[in-house]
Amino acid sequence: MSLITLLTDFGDRDGFPGAMKGVIAGIAPDVRVVDIAHGLPRGDILHASWVLRSAYLYFPAGTVHVAVVDPGVGSGRRAIAVRALGQSFVAPDNGLLAWVIREVSDAGEPVEAWSIEDARFQLAPPSDTFHGRDVFAPAASFLARGVDPSELGRDLDPRPAPEGELSGGPVIELLPRAQDPPGTGRIIHVDRFGNCITTLAVEDLPASVHGGGGTFATEGREGTTEVPGLLPSYRAVGEGEPLALAGSTGLVEIAVNGGDAAKELRLTRGDQVWLKR
Amino acid sequence: MSLITLLTDFGDRDGFPGAMKGVIAGIAPDVRVVDIAHGLPRGDILHASWVLRSAYLYFPAGTVHVAVVDPGVGSGRRAIAVRALGQSFVAPDNGLLAWVIREVSDAGEPVEAWSIEDARFQLAPPSDTFHGRDVFAPAASFLARGVDPSELGRDLDPRPAPEGELSGGPVIELLPRAQDPPGTGRIIHVDRFGNCITTLAVEDLPASVHGGGGTFATEGREGTTEVPGLLPSYRAVGEGEPLALAGSTGLVEIAVNGGDAAKELRLTRGDQVWLKR
Amino acid sequence: MSLITLLTDFGDRDGFPGAMKGVIAGIAPDVRVVDIAHGLPRGDILHASWVLRSAYLYFPAGTVHVAVVDPGVGSGRRAIAVRALGQSFVAPDNGLLAWVIREVSDAGEPVEAWSIEDARFQLAPPSDTFHGRDVFAPAASFLARGVDPSELGRDLDPRPAPEGELSGGPVIELLPRAQDPPGTGRIIHVDRFGNCITTLAVEDLPASVHGGGGTFATEGREGTTEVPGLLPSYRAVGEGEPLALAGSTGLVEIAVNGGDAAKELRLTRGDQVWLKR
Repeated sequence: MSLITLLTDFGDRDGFPGAMKGVIAGIAPDVRVVDIAHGLPRGDILHASWVLRSAYLYFPAGTVHVAVVDPGVGSGRRAIAVRALGQSFVAPDNGLLAWVIREVSDAGEPVEAWSIEDARFQLAPPSDTFHGRDVFAPAASFLARGVDPSELGRDLDPRPAPEGELSGGPVIELLPRAQDPPGTGRIIHVDRFGNCITTLAVEDLPASVHGGGGTFATEGREGTTEVPGLLPSYRAVGEGEPLALAGSTGLVEIAVNGGDAAKELRLTRGDQVWLKR
Repeated sequence: MSLITLLTDFGDRDGFPGAMKGVIAGIAPDVRVVDIAHGLPRGDILHASWVLRSAYLYFPAGTVHVAVVDPGVGSGRRAIAVRALGQSFVAPDNGLLAWVIREVSDAGEPVEAWSIEDARFQLAPPSDTFHGRDVFAPAASFLARGVDPSELGRDLDPRPAPEGELSGGPVIELLPRAQDPPGTGRIIHVDRFGNCITTLAVEDLPASVHGGGGTFATEGREGTTEVPGLLPSYRAVGEGEPLALAGSTGLVEIAVNGGDAAKELRLTRGDQVWLKR
Repeated sequence: MSLITLLTDFGDRDGFPGAMKGVIAGIAPDVRVVDIAHGLPRGDILHASWVLRSAYLYFPAGTVHVAVVDPGVGSGRRAIAVRALGQSFVAPDNGLLAWVIREVSDAGEPVEAWSIEDARFQLAPPSDTFHGRDVFAPAASFLARGVDPSELGRDLDPRPAPEGELSGGPVIELLPRAQDPPGTGRIIHVDRFGNCITTLAVEDLPASVHGGGGTFATEGREGTTEVPGLLPSYRAVGEGEPLALAGSTGLVEIAVNGGDAAKELRLTRGDQVWLKR
C-alpha cells in the first residue's frame, strides 16, 4: 500500500490540505496520506526545502512526497516530478527540491526528473492559484497508483546547476559562500524550539571536538558568541546556557538548554558559524 | 473503504480531535480519518462554512464529513445529518452546513436532512460540552459503516429558508444584501495569505474582463480601492501590487502579489466588492 | 489493523512528526497513524500528561500511544513502555505517563512497565536529541507489530510513587496539595478556549449542586471570584457571564459563555477552586 506525504505552507485554518486529500482519495483511494507539516512560514522555499530534506530519508521506498510552497503559482514556473532513492517527489520547480537532488547526487545515487504537463494527470482545468490541489495532488496520486513519471511530461536534466539547483531558486543563497573562510558554515534552519541548525557536518569535524573538546563561534546581530561543543545533550550545560551539539540530522546545532537559542543569542538564518577550537 | 473528514475549531494543543479519532477507531476501525482543518477561528461558523464548502466537492462519494464549530453546544441546538451528492455531513444545526445545502439545492440536486437523536448512535451519556466526541464522531462512524441516516433521528426539511439556511445561522449575514447594488459582492473569506475571496462568481462576469480588461473596486475601512483584474496569477502585477484574480473556487479574489491583501488594503470580511469596468 | 497515535510539542513547521511517521511506515507499513496533537506548549509535561489522559480512553484496545514532550532528551532519562487497559504507551520517563498510570491503578486495573533499551528496536545509532524519531517511533512500531514489550528492556515497577509518578516528574505539582482544605481542587488545564478544567470530580459533588444549586469559588491573581454551577451548558448563563459546568472528562470546568475564562477571570493553572455552596 502506497503512501503520499504532504508538506505545505497552507496552514490549518483554510482547508487547503483538506481539498488535496479529497483529490487524492478520489484518484487513489487505497493510498494513505500523512501530513509532514502545513505550518511552514508563508512562501519560504528554503525552509520547506530543509524540512523535506530532514524528513524524506525516513520514509520507505515507494513513498510519494508532495511539497508545495509556491509563491510563483500561475506565473509559468514549471511543475516537476523527481525520482530518487526509490521515492518520488512532486513540487514547483522553484528550488524546493534542490536540497534533496543535490544530496542524492552528491552521494552518487541517480536522480531523474520530469516536467508535469500532461492534462490527463491534472484536474480539468487547473486553476491558476491552487496547483497543490489541481496539479500536484493528482500527479502524486497517479504516481502512487503506478503511473510512470515519464508519462507526466518531458525528461529534465536533474543534474544540479553550478549553484546546486535544478533550475534556479533560493536554496543556495544561505549556504556557505565562496568568500567564506574554509570551515565556516551558516545557520540554515531555526526550528520551533529556537535551535539553530548549521551547515557544518558533524562527521567533518576533528575527533578532538567530539565529546566537548571544542569551542564554536557564531556571528549574529550582536557580534560574536562562543559556545562549547560538541556536547551530547542539551543538559550537558546548565539551564539557560548555550552549547553546540550534534543535531539529529548529522549537522552541528547551536542551542540553549531549556531556552531559545535564536532569541537569546540573537541568531538568524544565514549567520556564520565556525569551529574556533 | 470509507473516509471520514474532520473540520473543527479545536486547535492542535488540547487533543480534542484526538479523542474524536479514538471514538471513530473504536466504532468503525476500517474507516480512514483525514483532517481538513482544526485551526479555524474559535466559534466562527461562517468561516467553517466556507472552508467546508471549498473542500467537500473534492472528496469522493461515500465520504462522511464531520464539522464542529459549536458555540451553542449543550444549549439544545439540534445536531443534524445531511446527505447530498452521495456524501454525508454531520454538524450542529447552526448554519455551518447552510452553504453546502444551498449550493447543492441551487444546482437542482436533492438534499436530505435528519436530526441526530437516537442514543444508540451516541456515546452514553453524551457530555454537554463535547458533542464532537460524543455525538458527531459516533454518528459519522455509524454512517460510514452503512447505517442509514434515517435511523439517526427525524426527517428534516432541508430546503433553504428564505435566508438560505436550514434553521437559522450566521451564514447569510455577510453575503450580498438586498440593498446592495446589482453586481455588488462581498468578501466572504480571508485566507492565511490575506487573499480576500469574494462572492462574485467568475462565470458571471462579462467576457471582456477575463484576461485583465477590468477594474474592480473594494470598499474597506479606508475608502475605495481599485485593482486591475481578472488577471491570471499573482505575478501578473509587480511585487507588492494589488490585483483581482479568478480564485481556485470559481470566485473573484482580491490579492497582493507577494503580500497580504487584507492587511495592506485594509479589507475585512463583509466589505463590498464590485466590477467598475 | 493496529493504530499508533502521536502526541508531541513538535509543532507544525519543522516536520519532526513527519520523520516519525516515516519511521513507522518503514517498520510497520500496515499500521495507521493518527495525530492527537503536536501544538502542545514547548516542554510542558503536565500539559501533555493531561491531553493524553483526556484522549487515550477513547481509543480501542491494541492502540499504541507515542507521547513525546522531552526536555531531558539525551541526558540519560529513561525511555519507557507501559501497558494498561489493553493499550500501550511509549514516552520519556519524565512524568508524562504518570496521570494515566495513576488513574488506571486507582481503578484497580493492572499496569505494567518496561524500560526501552534494546538497540534492536531503535534506529542505529539513535541521535541524542530526537528520540521521538529514533527511539519512540520504532518502539511503538514494533509493539504495533506484536513484539512483546518485555523484549524492549527491563521490567519496571509501575506502582505510583508516593507522589503519584513512575519515577519523578512534575505531574503532581499542581494537583491539590496536602495543605489544601478538604474539597479544594486546582486548575489542572486551560484549553484553547480559555476553559479552566479543575481536579474536582463531578461525581464527588453533592446532588444538590447538580442542576445549578451551587456556587464555586476560584482564587486567581485578582482575588476570589464566585461563579454559579454546576450548569448544563455555556449558554445557561448570559453572554460573557462566568459559570461552572460538568466538563467532558468528568471534572468541573470554570468557563465564560462565549468568552475566555482564563483571560477574563485572570485564572491560571494551579489556582485553587472549591465549592462554596
